[in-house]
Amino acid sequence: MTESQSACQSVGIVAPQTARFEEVLPLRCGAHLDGYELVFETYGTLNAAHSNAVLVCHALSGSHHVAGRYANEEKDSGWWNNLVGPGKPLDTRKFFVIGVNNLGGCHGSTGPRSANPASGRPWGADFPFITVEDWVDAQARLADSLGIGSFAAVIGGSLGGMQALSWSLRYPERIRHAAVIASAAKLSAQNIAFNEVARQAILTDPDFHDGHFYAFNTLPERGLRLARMVGHITYLSDDAMGEKFGRNLHHGKAAYSYDAEFEIESYLRHQGNRFSRQFDANTYLLTTRALDYYDPAFAYGDNLTAALAAARAGFLVVAFTTDWRFSPDRSREIVYALAHNGRDVTYAEIDSAAGHDSFLLDDPQYHAVLAAWFDRIEV
Amino acid sequence: MTESQSACQSVGIVAPQTARFEEVLPLRCGAHLDGYELVFETYGTLNAAHSNAVLVCHALSGSHHVAGRYANEEKDSGWWNNLVGPGKPLDTRKFFVIGVNNLGGCHGSTGPRSANPASGRPWGADFPFITVEDWVDAQARLADSLGIGSFAAVIGGSLGGMQALSWSLRYPERIRHAAVIASAAKLSAQNIAFNEVARQAILTDPDFHDGHFYAFNTLPERGLRLARMVGHITYLSDDAMGEKFGRNLHHGKAAYSYDAEFEIESYLRHQGNRFSRQFDANTYLLTTRALDYYDPAFAYGDNLTAALAAARAGFLVVAFTTDWRFSPDRSREIVYALAHNGRDVTYAEIDSAAGHDSFLLDDPQYHAVLAAWFDRIEV
Repeated sequence: MTESQSACQSVGIVAPQTARFEEVLPLRCGAHLDGYELVFETYGTLNAAHSNAVLVCHALSGSHHVAGRYANEEKDSGWWNNLVGPGKPLDTRKFFVIGVNNLGGCHGSTGPRSANPASGRPWGADFPFITVEDWVDAQARLADSLGIGSFAAVIGGSLGGMQALSWSLRYPERIRHAAVIASAAKLSAQNIAFNEVARQAILTDPDFHDGHFYAFNTLPERGLRLARMVGHITYLSDDAMGEKFGRNLHHGKAAYSYDAEFEIESYLRHQGNRFSRQFDANTYLLTTRALDYYDPAFAYGDNLTAALAAARAGFLVVAFTTDWRFSPDRSREIVYALAHNGRDVTYAEIDSAAGHDSFLLDDPQYHAVLAAWFDRIEV
Repeated sequence: MTESQSACQSVGIVAPQTARFEEVLPLRCGAHLDGYELVFETYGTLNAAHSNAVLVCHALSGSHHVAGRYANEEKDSGWWNNLVGPGKPLDTRKFFVIGVNNLGGCHGSTGPRSANPASGRPWGADFPFITVEDWVDAQARLADSLGIGSFAAVIGGSLGGMQALSWSLRYPERIRHAAVIASAAKLSAQNIAFNEVARQAILTDPDFHDGHFYAFNTLPERGLRLARMVGHITYLSDDAMGEKFGRNLHHGKAAYSYDAEFEIESYLRHQGNRFSRQFDANTYLLTTRALDYYDPAFAYGDNLTAALAAARAGFLVVAFTTDWRFSPDRSREIVYALAHNGRDVTYAEIDSAAGHDSFLLDDPQYHAVLAAWFDRIEV
């Protein structure tokens, strides 16, 4: 990740914290959690009025580690490090920024890898289904514990954008602004189809053991690897993939083998291998299912305008021209529904070649829009 | 499959034939086959001048069974039955039509399931890599054996279109017309990426046994199933999938499970399950690899115009607006290169919502173009 402005600085060395919640959390699926932990990080300082807090919601493979780096890891900076820091679009000299690992995640918050109080063993596949709304409810308790009555803004890309949108509907009085980036108000059939392929890869991996692979001292690496590979294809545009990898052959000509001969094959295998050893398969399953189910208009007869009537926040909606996972059309649906409700909404359609992944990059136009929008927010 | 005109008839009951070739077939990969068999079907009658033959080349999951039906199978008509028959666009009252299962296939032609003469056991993963050019060479010998000096036309969709294009370059004096439908002169990085995911699903299936699963009395069903599922997503447009399946839930609401709740999930699982029990995993691997490697411009410094200079046939190139696997841009590249060479080329860009699969459907505009083009061919 590069810095878009030389004046920008990193938030520096950071450390995660853990919050424990003892109150029962009812879940949409009908189950509940007796208690749970959320791992989070903060950057900047909460002001005296507690009015400058910004929540950053993560997408499928993200985490609470949004910015800065850990003392013992020189290279791994947070996934939105280009966005968050002193002098950056989400300026930590003005805002108190919070990153939180979602409930059901695998980066420290309570999830399938955690011990099930009923058995003392990892929850595994018995961890309850979590929805976008459940995530938001769990995050609201984190806000309570930090003394944050209302957020200056909630921001997220992709699945994170769904959380920002959900925040505006579930807690309209607790969120003054929402940034919904490279996202959608619901998945399309094609989106669900890709999730289904990924899930079937995991569920049919013999090492998955019905979601209780922890007890077998193994990991469903084959399934997770395939899931990540197919996911990666949808994160990049056809053009971006063509420009980055083309049809380049490692040996300069066909070697007639199933080894990784084309550069795109090496890239996907590398991404898949790395992910399969780090990410939790049950978290992958429940997160993709949360995506599938998310559909705030469902209870309103598919009328998104009616569904978004409860929102009070000022919105920023951002889409990227070559994003075919969540195309600009999907963002415009949200914009139209908000505008029909008379909401304050800014829409930016960024001309970017990088596809869905654009939301993680520091495209100058994109970051200028974010900087201007955050600059306008009064704290 | 429906008939576009009531006057059209089926070719009726058909039966496959087998041709045996004893002459050594050298292959691009450096290996050779001492002999091989091709399974084929014919429809219509070869005229006295042997000038009315049309070769139909199949795509990944196709076969020699192009039209009609078998006496013992009431329902399974050929994959292009809507196109081939008396009164249909490829009219069997005028043309002698040949469908052939490709070398390396799994519908009867010599392939990985066949006995390796060296061992007496199935070739499996030891079957040599086959290229598009090898298919064409093998087909040329079938033409020899049928007394066909030159084809009135060679036609194919998708991978079949690559074979038609290759025919025009390898045997320019033996092919008077070529129809290249929903195809491309080479795969993009994204195309290769999807193939790679499918191959990795198969190669990492424990039941694949390094391609010698026949000896273990098992099939890599999990891998083939995933390969087919991800393939199917690329055959349909986002819109077509949305119109056909939408977000419809079997139970009318979320059941919070990983069962097939959304209709698109049931569809993909059904397609995957059926395919995984019928298709040969090694054929899938070598066919996708043949697709990856196909690149006639490679030897010409990526200059497609130079690569197609050898062609003498009259061309029909057809693309479908919503085909994102082989988009109209890819067809236009072929058209431009042919036009630069002064070739006779007709280009039709059909407004269809069905995506890549459109080439199999009997869209009236599409079939009218085909009918007019075939009607113009003198035999």
